[in-house]
Amino acid sequence: MCIFCKIVAGELPSTKVYEDEKTLAFMDINPVNPGHTLLIPKKHVETIYELDEETGKAVMSTLIKLVRAVKKATNCQGVTIHQANEKAANQVVPHLHIHIIPRWEKDYALGGWKAKPGDPEEIKKQADKIRNCLGS
Amino acid sequence: MCIFCKIVAGELPSTKVYEDEKTLAFMDINPVNPGHTLLIPKKHVETIYELDEETGKAVMSTLIKLVRAVKKATNCQGVTIHQANEKAANQVVPHLHIHIIPRWEKDYALGGWKAKPGDPEEIKKQADKIRNCLGS
Repeated sequence: MCIFCKIVAGELPSTKVYEDEKTLAFMDINPVNPGHTLLIPKKHVETIYELDEETGKAVMSTLIKLVRAVKKATNCQGVTIHQANEKAANQVVPHLHIHIIPRWEKDYALGGWKAKPGDPEEIKKQADKIRNCLGS
Repeated sequence: MCIFCKIVAGELPSTKVYEDEKTLAFMDINPVNPGHTLLIPKKHVETIYELDEETGKAVMSTLIKLVRAVKKATNCQGVTIHQANEKAANQVVPHLHIHIIPRWEKDYALGGWKAKPGDPEEIKKQADKIRNCLGS
């Protein structure tokens, strides 16, 4: 059983903030900023690729409520939502989890990225491939 | 009208990959990696704080389909989902948008963060505040 499934089952402790039939939210023990919260589906789903629509909608419903509460509770100036799939994206626990990270101006909490214009032809080529995969 | 509302209205060009009644997906013109896609609700919503549940569920439904297609189309090794709210979180366009970023091992495309254990008492304090705000 993965560590988040153990938290769901009550076999590992966690600081829970919200729970309903399909979702659970608890504090990240390695917070990037105060109020850093994790939201998971209770069901073991490893990545968003395997997430079914019904569970996804339950996760979104909780996410909206939770982000508002985190914002209000921490009085932060912004919120970053971050969700990593697979090791290449730095996913550590193999159970889908959404990071809700309160942000303040110049907290330098996350690396982010610098926007650089891409090659328009390459962008079109990628779009064609994605469209084809959506059709299949 | 914000630039994403102009894209929705067809007043600004974009490389669209998916569109339905409530959502639109198009290529980021400043891709972090090949296949970097943006997903937005067509409705002008600035941040996730203002997102209504019905629109949120439509966004989630498209997100799941889209991530699977981006993964398949790019043959990437992982996917980062990133959504920024307010300037403190580096939100640039004031219309809610979700970044879908294909990832490859050691692409160093995003800064990320190093996990450092937090103070358990401080974490409990934050959880109490969030729980209070969820109840209100």
